[in-house]
Amino acid sequence: MNSILTDTPTSGTAWPFREPGALDAPSLEGLDRWWRAANYLSVGQIYLLDNPLLRTELTADDVKPRLLGHWGTTPGLNFLYAHLNRVINERSTHALYITGPGHGGPGLVANSYLEGTYTETYPDISRDAEGLRLLFRQFSFPGGIPSHVAPETPGSIHEGGELGYALSHAYGAAFDNPDLLVACVIGDGEAETGPLAAGWHGNKFLNPATDGVVLPILHLNGYKIANPTVLSRIPESELAELMRGYGHTPYLFTAGFDDEPISSIHERFALLLDEVLNQIAEYKAAAAQGDIDRPAWPMIVFRTPKGWTCPKVIDGLPAEGSWRSHQVPLSNARDTPEHLAVLHDWLASYHPAELFDDDGALAADIAALAPAGELRMSANPSANGGQLLRDLRLPDFRQFGVEVPHPGATVAEATRVLGNWLTAVIERNPDNFRIFGPDETASNRLQSVFEVTDKQWNGLYADSDSADHLAPRGRVVETLSEHQCQGWLEGYLLTGRHGLFNCYEAFIHIIDSMFNQHAKWLDVTRHIPWRRPIASLNYLLSSHVWRQDHNGFSHQDPGFIDHVLNKKSEIVRVYLPADANTLLSTYDHCLRSKNYVNVVVAGKQPAPQWLTMDEAVAHCTRGLGIWEWAGTEEPGTEPDVVLGCAGDVPTLEVLAAADLLRTHLPDLRVRVVNVVDLMRLQDEAEHPHGLSSHDFDTIFTTDAPVIFAYHGYPWLIHRLTYRRTGHANWHVRGYKEEGTTTTPFDMVMLNDLDRFHLVIDVIDRVPSLGSRAAGLRQQMVDARLAAREYTRVHGEDLPEVGEWVWPGGDPETVISQVGTSGTGGDNE
Amino acid sequence: MNSILTDTPTSGTAWPFREPGALDAPSLEGLDRWWRAANYLSVGQIYLLDNPLLRTELTADDVKPRLLGHWGTTPGLNFLYAHLNRVINERSTHALYITGPGHGGPGLVANSYLEGTYTETYPDISRDAEGLRLLFRQFSFPGGIPSHVAPETPGSIHEGGELGYALSHAYGAAFDNPDLLVACVIGDGEAETGPLAAGWHGNKFLNPATDGVVLPILHLNGYKIANPTVLSRIPESELAELMRGYGHTPYLFTAGFDDEPISSIHERFALLLDEVLNQIAEYKAAAAQGDIDRPAWPMIVFRTPKGWTCPKVIDGLPAEGSWRSHQVPLSNARDTPEHLAVLHDWLASYHPAELFDDDGALAADIAALAPAGELRMSANPSANGGQLLRDLRLPDFRQFGVEVPHPGATVAEATRVLGNWLTAVIERNPDNFRIFGPDETASNRLQSVFEVTDKQWNGLYADSDSADHLAPRGRVVETLSEHQCQGWLEGYLLTGRHGLFNCYEAFIHIIDSMFNQHAKWLDVTRHIPWRRPIASLNYLLSSHVWRQDHNGFSHQDPGFIDHVLNKKSEIVRVYLPADANTLLSTYDHCLRSKNYVNVVVAGKQPAPQWLTMDEAVAHCTRGLGIWEWAGTEEPGTEPDVVLGCAGDVPTLEVLAAADLLRTHLPDLRVRVVNVVDLMRLQDEAEHPHGLSSHDFDTIFTTDAPVIFAYHGYPWLIHRLTYRRTGHANWHVRGYKEEGTTTTPFDMVMLNDLDRFHLVIDVIDRVPSLGSRAAGLRQQMVDARLAAREYTRVHGEDLPEVGEWVWPGGDPETVISQVGTSGTGGDNE
Repeated sequence: MNSILTDTPTSGTAWPFREPGALDAPSLEGLDRWWRAANYLSVGQIYLLDNPLLRTELTADDVKPRLLGHWGTTPGLNFLYAHLNRVINERSTHALYITGPGHGGPGLVANSYLEGTYTETYPDISRDAEGLRLLFRQFSFPGGIPSHVAPETPGSIHEGGELGYALSHAYGAAFDNPDLLVACVIGDGEAETGPLAAGWHGNKFLNPATDGVVLPILHLNGYKIANPTVLSRIPESELAELMRGYGHTPYLFTAGFDDEPISSIHERFALLLDEVLNQIAEYKAAAAQGDIDRPAWPMIVFRTPKGWTCPKVIDGLPAEGSWRSHQVPLSNARDTPEHLAVLHDWLASYHPAELFDDDGALAADIAALAPAGELRMSANPSANGGQLLRDLRLPDFRQFGVEVPHPGATVAEATRVLGNWLTAVIERNPDNFRIFGPDETASNRLQSVFEVTDKQWNGLYADSDSADHLAPRGRVVETLSEHQCQGWLEGYLLTGRHGLFNCYEAFIHIIDSMFNQHAKWLDVTRHIPWRRPIASLNYLLSSHVWRQDHNGFSHQDPGFIDHVLNKKSEIVRVYLPADANTLLSTYDHCLRSKNYVNVVVAGKQPAPQWLTMDEAVAHCTRGLGIWEWAGTEEPGTEPDVVLGCAGDVPTLEVLAAADLLRTHLPDLRVRVVNVVDLMRLQDEAEHPHGLSSHDFDTIFTTDAPVIFAYHGYPWLIHRLTYRRTGHANWHVRGYKEEGTTTTPFDMVMLNDLDRFHLVIDVIDRVPSLGSRAAGLRQQMVDARLAAREYTRVHGEDLPEVGEWVWPGGDPETVISQVGTSGTGGDNE
Repeated sequence: MNSILTDTPTSGTAWPFREPGALDAPSLEGLDRWWRAANYLSVGQIYLLDNPLLRTELTADDVKPRLLGHWGTTPGLNFLYAHLNRVINERSTHALYITGPGHGGPGLVANSYLEGTYTETYPDISRDAEGLRLLFRQFSFPGGIPSHVAPETPGSIHEGGELGYALSHAYGAAFDNPDLLVACVIGDGEAETGPLAAGWHGNKFLNPATDGVVLPILHLNGYKIANPTVLSRIPESELAELMRGYGHTPYLFTAGFDDEPISSIHERFALLLDEVLNQIAEYKAAAAQGDIDRPAWPMIVFRTPKGWTCPKVIDGLPAEGSWRSHQVPLSNARDTPEHLAVLHDWLASYHPAELFDDDGALAADIAALAPAGELRMSANPSANGGQLLRDLRLPDFRQFGVEVPHPGATVAEATRVLGNWLTAVIERNPDNFRIFGPDETASNRLQSVFEVTDKQWNGLYADSDSADHLAPRGRVVETLSEHQCQGWLEGYLLTGRHGLFNCYEAFIHIIDSMFNQHAKWLDVTRHIPWRRPIASLNYLLSSHVWRQDHNGFSHQDPGFIDHVLNKKSEIVRVYLPADANTLLSTYDHCLRSKNYVNVVVAGKQPAPQWLTMDEAVAHCTRGLGIWEWAGTEEPGTEPDVVLGCAGDVPTLEVLAAADLLRTHLPDLRVRVVNVVDLMRLQDEAEHPHGLSSHDFDTIFTTDAPVIFAYHGYPWLIHRLTYRRTGHANWHVRGYKEEGTTTTPFDMVMLNDLDRFHLVIDVIDRVPSLGSRAAGLRQQMVDARLAAREYTRVHGEDLPEVGEWVWPGGDPETVISQVGTSGTGGDNE
């Protein structure tokens, strides 16, 4: 985090202790003036088209015709922002502001405007009356900015869309940022979501010495859209127990429900915040000395009325302190003079003439309250992580490949081979690369990383833990919550670091909607020049659909790929490497890339290896290609049939089918095409990786039948290829929700993806074979029945099926890189 | 719940108080004998092919070649089952056992075998040596049963697949089952997930008098696959605070870590369980008197070694009490005589000869410990909900339709109209129908239901709450957790009731993976004759992609439909009604159906209505059809172009385009086809609702260009139709991830789905128009630019666009069924 500190003077420590004491009147007045200014700018954004300084009579034409946005959470966000600025100034604290209630977009825009960042970022929004007019007009207006906190908002790493991930993002940002305070405001609505409820336990994974501090602020404003919130409707003693149960020291603050003078409210909160920051400073000092391992970090319960400072009653119904202030409390502001007067009085209640001069410039005393430079939360470099991003120092993956003297001559576990390379990646990048996973890193056979690092853990320890690689520091972070893994990684990437998320394929659907939000964020940032590119979000999906031997049907779902492909093609990449060397080459590419989501699906079971490292690199560079050694084409002629494959198990079955065909129908001209980069199948107009029509037609032909064996749901291949010339000739085999607890070969047979059925498919689709293939067809039908029957009797696959090797390989295959599960469990 | 009580004698109350006292030795011995028998059967299932009674020397051939399954959680599940049976017997308690750690499949199978249910359900698995052999052999064996708790397991409503939903299912089962005890075992791994962490708050929604009781039992066995669990590694005082913070009275029980005699362990737990059941009885009695509103229901922390009773050390490494016992602790059981001896000694440690007689029959004293009939947890009718299912009494939806004197002559909000009918549904079905939603029931404009019911709430109350329809009892249950809404509804349906889940379209992806698990459950149960059909899971997705005026891009995602269609076509149905009357007809169908997942997407904004009720019924019966009034065909000729549409906004734009075409190109023969049942587009071989080729070709033609305006991602329509004859002529417009905060028409323009662009599409694809359409084309281009420009200046849509009406309608459209948001907020 040195880069954050360079250009801003700091005290001797990033976490100073300040003797708490009452604030003087000017300081309290300054806090209030900032708050009023932020509130005024927020209301202005929601309502005003013109007359931004309220210097003339407010007319209907000054008010937007469509009132869109959310007021309810905003004044609380503004209050907290003002107070955090005070302690940032006093302590030179580097702070990031995570706005869980992202509906409060106008508030965050307002504060960054007050800090000057907004005008630096968007010069049109100047610090004068015209700038204010444009600031107000653009909000939630066609061609303007979103109503939520968004990529467009300086200082934000957290989209105000789907709720639940504020704490996960906060913890992700705090990892390896020891001098960073992450102030994380959590709406009491959001607090009801599952991901947020589990997110509190992030403190069991943070190292107090080497990571930053997350300060959760639970904004208990009592209401959601139309209902009270759960946490506002349990006794405060119960809420305090819940927070202590989560491992925090809770501080309860309540204001705004009575006639307490505002100066007293500010003073009480300032004192509380001093106490909180001092407690953090003490914990940090102790952690630096190694004197504390599980600090009960403070958290604040911030209880205020919803819509605080808006009219108490509108049209006879409660507004402030009610769910009615959630969105736009006065939704018909320009229909009657009475409503216009309500809006006017509300705006005037902040006394804008005291906050802005006649030209619309912010009063100098308020502007002076903004922290300096990058100490402004709206200008913190961590909130524009690409600024801080350093490329990874990647070891040469070619050195980690497996020897493949002949296709199929080596057996290896692809993810275990990848793990060896990742081990070296970790060694070379000790502070900006992390692996996240839901207790599956060893199960997915990446466990060699534990030779050089540990699993970071801040819970109680047992004697056996060091043997299990649990430690206060480590590059691997594991918890049984896909939501936390995804949220932590997002937070880590968005603040300028690198990482990957390894997960069982079926359960990655748990974070479908989180992927959506992140992909949308990346999509939007592509059009925001000041947002620098961040490292790609890399998935490693293993324990995939075809090998759920221990678990069966409930653990089988290859549909994450389908889900991902609904997002912009500029953002998403999908790879299905067929063996260890292609996986290495693929992952090297992924860890170098920026602003993508890379989905890589790879098996962990011992499997035959097909390509040498040089071949793998060439194959991955092309993304797909003809495996000439596997086919039976004659030079200068077109194939009778094309066998396509994508994914490790489908590739194995296609090669076994090719072997059967060359044995039984030696004059059939078979072409084998393997696809590693799935996006190559799409048209170049549809995806940047798409193959041109010419190249596609050359490889797959325009008239030969194509039997395509695919890892996932078969229709995806049709979706990707339906515009191709020869698409009518394509026949796709894939997963069709036929599964159970079974043997590996039984599983492919259940879905008609097995070698025998692929041969049947060829026979049925190559009319020129005529009746001479009838015998072979029956032989294949019989072989399937025999294979099924064998499993029913013996509980394992027929040896000649399970032990099949590619012809011409050594009679003894080389067993390489296959081991026991080592330090972790083998499978869920 | 009377049906559960009919054939079993009960005491005067379902919740009796028993004076606690020490158990006599025979009772303690009985508990232990049951536990040993269940453990023996569990180990036998994981390991043995033969020699089930261990009456001959154990040989390698007796052991399965592939050892699959999970031991770690099983002995704890068995212990709890034995003890619950004791209190069930003593109190005639009706109890359901939710197995959060679903990996413990062998345990649940074992207990239902001991209770006799398994043999009653599967007669082949008889209560003798041969039955035992088959019981063991079938487990996780090709052609046998899954290794997890599954639909095949009697007594289960909870698949042991993806973790996180045990508590949600438990609360769903408890709603409206006042005499039911739902014992919910939660694994400490599962406890780390988000959905489970939020699931604890279910107690804020349960009514203590009219709903059942959920007894959470947190099984703290300390380890997941390869890591310790978070909740086992915080101080017990902290854990107790967490549980009290969740509103429970926690009881901590620890056993198995020292040499305490087993009889003492049983006695301690029996006493604890008596105390817990007595506390429940007292709360229930108080609730019946109206003397208590927020009981701090008991919960149990059950701390035991993982893999309890397996060998303490295997091959020099800890097994019992370690993550190594998670799956198959002795994974190479038949490779050496030493390993075989370990397995033998482990099996023998349960003394099978004391538990089963020489014929393999269970000892009579153990068999006698099983509760009677339906009091057996494995035979509880609630676990086979179809047995209890009563059809809903549905009011005639035709009486709730809107008058449509002429297409487009009425403006209504479709979901508000549906809400009126749902109000009557609730009135007629006061105890077996519920609406679940994440605080969006009013926002989605179903708020008229609050005229006859309330939102069920068991938190603290404020004065304003009764006006907001919060009450201790109510048919609507709302919490800001899509996971809980989905889980509660699943639990409610699986125990034989009806309901729907209303949700913003974009955020339904949050439960993608939960949908997967439920769909797989339904798919499997179709092949299990004793599982009776349950009510369909009905979604109402509103606040959809095209009308996120307040929220913008982050709230736009129509991809749930794509996700759903990856599951078996026998299970899933997708409907896109274009107006209120078609929505009514559709939903009536959905609430009558069984064993499906019905996805219905419908708008909530004021919109023109197209069909009379009679037309709507006919249209929904067909699923799709030609709207002759909208087209310009001449009898006996084929159309020049087909305009297809699915979804309310696309339908509006297609009709506006048809209007433009009839005005400007009056001799162009246009056909308009509207699709309400999306599955009709698929081939009849692909989906039961699929249209035959003949019918499809008749409607869409085989050669005319088809411009199809679709609610969601356009490629889905290609996926559904790529096998159709005329597919090459199809051109689909839909959502392509272009969105922001905008006006309704700007939104459709951004995605090229607007009327002007549809006209351009027609011109570009009907070559016969030639140059005579060039002027119109330019006019459309200009119209789009003008419409965009207008929004940029005025912030709202061009009046002639926003106020367009179908020609021939009354000059004044009838405004029907449009109101303010009433008792709830309007939008998130």
